[in-house]
Amino acid sequence: MIPRYSRKIMTDIWEAENRFKIWLEIETLACEKMAEMGTIPASVPKSLREKGNFDIERIDKIEKEVKHDVIAFLTSVAEYVGEDARFVHQGMTSSDVLDTALSVQLKQASDILIKDLEKLLEALKKRIIEHKNTLCIGRSHGIHAEPTTFGLKLASHYAAFDRAKERLIAAKEEIATCAISGAVGTYATINPSVQDYVAEKLGLKSEPVSTQIIPRDRHAMFFSVLGVIASSIENLATEIRHLQRTEVREAQEFFSKNQKGSSAMPHKKNPILTENLTGLARLVRSMSIPAMENVTLWHERDISHSSVERNIGPDATVTLDFALARLTNVIENLIIYPENMQYNLERMGGLVFSQKVLLALTQAGISREDAYRIVQKNAMEVWESNGDKQLIDLIKADEIVTNKLSNEQLDEIFDLSQYTKHVDTVLNRVLKSN
Amino acid sequence: MIPRYSRKIMTDIWEAENRFKIWLEIETLACEKMAEMGTIPASVPKSLREKGNFDIERIDKIEKEVKHDVIAFLTSVAEYVGEDARFVHQGMTSSDVLDTALSVQLKQASDILIKDLEKLLEALKKRIIEHKNTLCIGRSHGIHAEPTTFGLKLASHYAAFDRAKERLIAAKEEIATCAISGAVGTYATINPSVQDYVAEKLGLKSEPVSTQIIPRDRHAMFFSVLGVIASSIENLATEIRHLQRTEVREAQEFFSKNQKGSSAMPHKKNPILTENLTGLARLVRSMSIPAMENVTLWHERDISHSSVERNIGPDATVTLDFALARLTNVIENLIIYPENMQYNLERMGGLVFSQKVLLALTQAGISREDAYRIVQKNAMEVWESNGDKQLIDLIKADEIVTNKLSNEQLDEIFDLSQYTKHVDTVLNRVLKSN
Amino acid sequence: MIPRYSRKIMTDIWEAENRFKIWLEIETLACEKMAEMGTIPASVPKSLREKGNFDIERIDKIEKEVKHDVIAFLTSVAEYVGEDARFVHQGMTSSDVLDTALSVQLKQASDILIKDLEKLLEALKKRIIEHKNTLCIGRSHGIHAEPTTFGLKLASHYAAFDRAKERLIAAKEEIATCAISGAVGTYATINPSVQDYVAEKLGLKSEPVSTQIIPRDRHAMFFSVLGVIASSIENLATEIRHLQRTEVREAQEFFSKNQKGSSAMPHKKNPILTENLTGLARLVRSMSIPAMENVTLWHERDISHSSVERNIGPDATVTLDFALARLTNVIENLIIYPENMQYNLERMGGLVFSQKVLLALTQAGISREDAYRIVQKNAMEVWESNGDKQLIDLIKADEIVTNKLSNEQLDEIFDLSQYTKHVDTVLNRVLKSN
Amino acid sequence: MIPRYSRKIMTDIWEAENRFKIWLEIETLACEKMAEMGTIPASVPKSLREKGNFDIERIDKIEKEVKHDVIAFLTSVAEYVGEDARFVHQGMTSSDVLDTALSVQLKQASDILIKDLEKLLEALKKRIIEHKNTLCIGRSHGIHAEPTTFGLKLASHYAAFDRAKERLIAAKEEIATCAISGAVGTYATINPSVQDYVAEKLGLKSEPVSTQIIPRDRHAMFFSVLGVIASSIENLATEIRHLQRTEVREAQEFFSKNQKGSSAMPHKKNPILTENLTGLARLVRSMSIPAMENVTLWHERDISHSSVERNIGPDATVTLDFALARLTNVIENLIIYPENMQYNLERMGGLVFSQKVLLALTQAGISREDAYRIVQKNAMEVWESNGDKQLIDLIKADEIVTNKLSNEQLDEIFDLSQYTKHVDTVLNRVLKSN
Repeated sequence: MIPRYSRKIMTDIWEAENRFKIWLEIETLACEKMAEMGTIPASVPKSLREKGNFDIERIDKIEKEVKHDVIAFLTSVAEYVGEDARFVHQGMTSSDVLDTALSVQLKQASDILIKDLEKLLEALKKRIIEHKNTLCIGRSHGIHAEPTTFGLKLASHYAAFDRAKERLIAAKEEIATCAISGAVGTYATINPSVQDYVAEKLGLKSEPVSTQIIPRDRHAMFFSVLGVIASSIENLATEIRHLQRTEVREAQEFFSKNQKGSSAMPHKKNPILTENLTGLARLVRSMSIPAMENVTLWHERDISHSSVERNIGPDATVTLDFALARLTNVIENLIIYPENMQYNLERMGGLVFSQKVLLALTQAGISREDAYRIVQKNAMEVWESNGDKQLIDLIKADEIVTNKLSNEQLDEIFDLSQYTKHVDTVLNRVLKSN
Repeated sequence: MIPRYSRKIMTDIWEAENRFKIWLEIETLACEKMAEMGTIPASVPKSLREKGNFDIERIDKIEKEVKHDVIAFLTSVAEYVGEDARFVHQGMTSSDVLDTALSVQLKQASDILIKDLEKLLEALKKRIIEHKNTLCIGRSHGIHAEPTTFGLKLASHYAAFDRAKERLIAAKEEIATCAISGAVGTYATINPSVQDYVAEKLGLKSEPVSTQIIPRDRHAMFFSVLGVIASSIENLATEIRHLQRTEVREAQEFFSKNQKGSSAMPHKKNPILTENLTGLARLVRSMSIPAMENVTLWHERDISHSSVERNIGPDATVTLDFALARLTNVIENLIIYPENMQYNLERMGGLVFSQKVLLALTQAGISREDAYRIVQKNAMEVWESNGDKQLIDLIKADEIVTNKLSNEQLDEIFDLSQYTKHVDTVLNRVLKSN
Repeated sequence: MIPRYSRKIMTDIWEAENRFKIWLEIETLACEKMAEMGTIPASVPKSLREKGNFDIERIDKIEKEVKHDVIAFLTSVAEYVGEDARFVHQGMTSSDVLDTALSVQLKQASDILIKDLEKLLEALKKRIIEHKNTLCIGRSHGIHAEPTTFGLKLASHYAAFDRAKERLIAAKEEIATCAISGAVGTYATINPSVQDYVAEKLGLKSEPVSTQIIPRDRHAMFFSVLGVIASSIENLATEIRHLQRTEVREAQEFFSKNQKGSSAMPHKKNPILTENLTGLARLVRSMSIPAMENVTLWHERDISHSSVERNIGPDATVTLDFALARLTNVIENLIIYPENMQYNLERMGGLVFSQKVLLALTQAGISREDAYRIVQKNAMEVWESNGDKQLIDLIKADEIVTNKLSNEQLDEIFDLSQYTKHVDTVLNRVLKSN
Repeated sequence: MIPRYSRKIMTDIWEAENRFKIWLEIETLACEKMAEMGTIPASVPKSLREKGNFDIERIDKIEKEVKHDVIAFLTSVAEYVGEDARFVHQGMTSSDVLDTALSVQLKQASDILIKDLEKLLEALKKRIIEHKNTLCIGRSHGIHAEPTTFGLKLASHYAAFDRAKERLIAAKEEIATCAISGAVGTYATINPSVQDYVAEKLGLKSEPVSTQIIPRDRHAMFFSVLGVIASSIENLATEIRHLQRTEVREAQEFFSKNQKGSSAMPHKKNPILTENLTGLARLVRSMSIPAMENVTLWHERDISHSSVERNIGPDATVTLDFALARLTNVIENLIIYPENMQYNLERMGGLVFSQKVLLALTQAGISREDAYRIVQKNAMEVWESNGDKQLIDLIKADEIVTNKLSNEQLDEIFDLSQYTKHVDTVLNRVLKSN
């Protein structure tokens, strides 16, 4: 995570200010319930609500001495709250605060990421509808296959990000739990109802069992989901990079007026945003590995997960937020060249209709094997001519074919409209959910 | 995946026999719908149902020549089916068959894994109930913290595998889709209703949009879930390895009569099963990375994902199945030593009650800071005595304490029963779902 | 590792036959030294050399009972050797045999991989020399940049595989060590000179310190090197996939006579070998992660590394060997289209000379900023014409330019020969080592 | 990388100040050579040496507009240098500056890391010599195996970090290269001798072939080496965590006077530094994956590697530097408890001598199988007594044994001195290099 690839809305979540605010709220809520149960004086939560505060610099200073961040925080709070402070955090461990706070932060982060995905879906939807019938060549293995439409191309990415959203909602549920179970999670020093109360107030689930800490398989799942979403970003980014290739030129990232593509070559407009997204995806993806390694902690807990999470917590969410926003921007401003799509579609002399001819021949009674050979032979001649020859001409001149298929039938085969006939069906299925 | 770490029930799914059977079923179902729609003669699905078959050796031989597995398969089927064969696979691509078949295989694998998890949960549940009140020391950072029970320890793992099951059910849903959309996914040569029909018959969802292939973010999610489950296995395996340490000896893997622990040292009984599980977890986890890298394919598809999936498809599911079965076996036969747990619990001179004293002092009006110092001083004396001194004795001899707390109060503090009072609450929450 | 992506030369290394042969040799060599030192009777190594043998089925059967592979092996050997067998393995642990044998296997594997790399280098060298002056467009960001030659393109891959070879030689050195240090590595039951002797005889280094096992950072390094080499394979494979794109068509994988590119589309020739290599690279790369996780073993050793190595040992080496051989084959048979390269080079109207114009203007006294603007303006006009306009024409019509540069100077700028003038220098630097 | 886990000495390398300084030096050196060759006026390098400077804020501002960092930098430099600036960077691309500068930064980082390793080695050496004969139990599988010494334990880690140093030196060599080859690496606009000159002046090798950028397999190798070193850190950290376990207590991290182990449990001293190192190791290790994914760039280059390197460049080196320094500190201040080592060594009733008895019986003519059974039977009795019974007593009471071995022979067997007899040999081999 570096400023260059960060947005304030997400970095704010990981600032000390937000973290300590959540800590204070957790402590206050816990005190509310404990006071209600008569475990601590009623004045404690009241003092916390009225005077509860903290001083970040002071906390840093204390932590340097005691080497324990929660104790440092509590000491700072005590300086604001006074006498009542000694009842704060009673029967709780640091993890009760730290882990529940991390849940809140990851929930906040998830909410932003879900909104990011919604904006991306919206941007995609607009371009899908705009280009739902814009014909272009579909490619498998980088080789021209059959026609499709640009809207259909985008629709597959739309569906992927729709799944991404569902996964993220599930991942948020996974992570949005509250544990206040005391040392090694026995509730020996704090009643389970405190946890239930704090959970409810914070919009979290109450963790059924914890071992002082919230179990890390939840976090592993969360960061893995981010990794999968990042991979979907890479997929769309790569598509755009391909379309912007000089030889293809079917789409192009927006290039601002004063932007310079190359310090040396003034003619260049490079797909640097999508290349950048490719790299960011690699980063987010890799963070799933330490998140999974974090699941195995010793006995009831050790703290090896902490240094990992202090890094990947912000890094993964900030990077993914930035990437989603950047991708949305790329999609919104993507320059699309339907005329180049048309040009590419036609440049291979109608080879794209080869399957149609094959099917018609089979239907007309030629064995699949023979039909395949006939079409392949003609197709290869077109291919080697670099699209100078037209498949329809060769086919119409092939007696084996014309013995079986009339000119009218062949003209019908070499008709692009058949490739768009199910576009609406697909789009209805894909876009229905929004 | 090697025989040593494989079970037949799972490897069978990945045998050629099962794969080709599924392919044949997909082709047959597709023909049923196409015949119903009048696209192909009604005799075709009938011939397939009656005569449809394949010869694995023959397929291998043909593939060597044509270098295309689906064409080789169709050729072999044609040799059984005869004339009608030329209508088989009509308008379809290889991916329609391959990807839908992979969905079926992963669904079959998921069903086994879900059953594996259920057996593991059952085994854990039995040991949890058996030992729900078996007191033992809880440890954070490997250091004695406070008492817990062995049942509670296992309950946290139970909850993790319960989550694993939920995740796997969701992952199965993710992966259980059917796509028969033809070249580059436009349905130009095959009506979408064929896909819908085949999906329904195979118990799959109908993929809303595909680009000839089923989108690989689904598979990335699937293998990531396996990786997270593997990490939970490692977590429990590590717990057992710790408990079997010579200095701890609270539990021990079952050691069969003729088993030899060491070729050199006849006295050894090693936790080799759980160490093995630790290694297997590393393997399964690592496979999530290539699965995520597979998401980015070029344009409508390339085939780079295939070599990855031919490996990790079997490897991840077979290894995880083996690991879950082995872990279940370890849990069922785990030898538990309650007397050693008791011994360890007491060996540090009652240090484990230090928090309780701290809380009582705070309640009695001493500031948290002062109370901490008082308890820490006495605790350190016990610690340095290696548990020869008893914390209760030192505390009862400390005037600052006794000014505030009576002997009766202190006896109440040093009472183990408080650590089990919420065990039933927790177990009710954890085990409720089964 | 599956048969489809395996070569016998490498899988043989990992067969039981080879493994047990190495074990027997290690035991025999150890006995030779022990007999020489008088620790065991002189008849023992003699018996081993004369009668030493093993029966794989028998070993499997015994292992099922004793659950210990080395004990099972020794029992089988004893059945051949008779009385003297009781002195075999004396003072040694299983790890002394297992780890040293793994070193031998990895050394054998390395030797094959090094040869693979040499063959690949040879194949590349041939194509480099063949095409050292075959002009083609160089692309950055997928966008036409400036001319280069196809030989130069390949030279950068040659250099990468030359580095790969150096790294593999170093990795082999890393891994080629022998440890026979007895339980927990103290040599208490076996003199260090036995290790030194066996090491020397097997062509290994004598491990300076081992903790019963050879330290796993060595293996982590080894598998990481394989991962890096796999990444270089992916790099070259991706280049070829790009060059084979329909819109580019500068090169093409060899396509055998009866090969079928697509079951549905007879016109297709797909770069399936290099796509396959891309997937194989993902697999090998991912194995570096569990190899690194294996470094951390408990105290003097645990056996968690074993299940990982039983898999990735064969998987990584077999897959990499197959991939290198396949890539060599791809390079040897690669069809190269210099005329398409020429076509692509020229299709953008001479835009590729833009930097040259920029430099000449700067040299002629125009500020870099102004020169950049002038060239960019003209370049964009060419770009938007899709290469219909020629940059040289626009430039010659631009008064600001012609005030500074003569027609002769401009003609010199738009000359392709300048891009090849340092080809020999580079090739001399790259190919010198062979 | 977060301040909590960073040291200024390493973060400084990654500051804008250092980066731009290196850029300026590269540009200046390139100008020196170009001036010498007569390509640009002699005044240019002179102006750069005299007036060359940059303004970081100004650069940031310009970059916002032109979206190109090197152009922004050159513009700022031009504002200091004046007229001559238009000859700066002539014929060069941004990559020539960026990549060579990254080489310099990674070389600077390597030098620090090598020093870190030397300090760690020194710290280890001191403790090795101090405790070379401090007997302690060696453990395999967490189970008591045979005696070793604490010095020997540390020696294996010493050897690992000695290898780490060798690997890092090699990795530094890998990465320390200079490429100034112009657009797509043809040297068309800049003579190769410029690169050679700059390389020599900066202490780098001259890259034999580059494609505008330095090939990324070099960086993949570099970051993989960091990952392997991190894994060795985790290994030693884990050893210390094990030794500090309450039940083991053979060593303990230094705990400062005012440090608090737990906010809730005043008795706790936790191995938080080594747990922290375990987490940091996970982070560094994971960065090898995106580094390897970076190897595959499109054609002559794309910029997807850049966002990865902007993160992992600093993250991996800063984290590893911090971890090495922290580990050195842990080792220097590690509290070692020889008396607890002795206690643990003896607590299992002399089981640790079981192999010795086995060997003596074999030597005395009993078959290995029988001897194993005899010793195992007695060993298990000791084991089940929890070390209350002594193996020597049981053995001396076993007639099958005493028929073969005299009391004197048995006393010799149960003698700890044999486990230290080769300590000096090993230490001489391990420490020789320093």
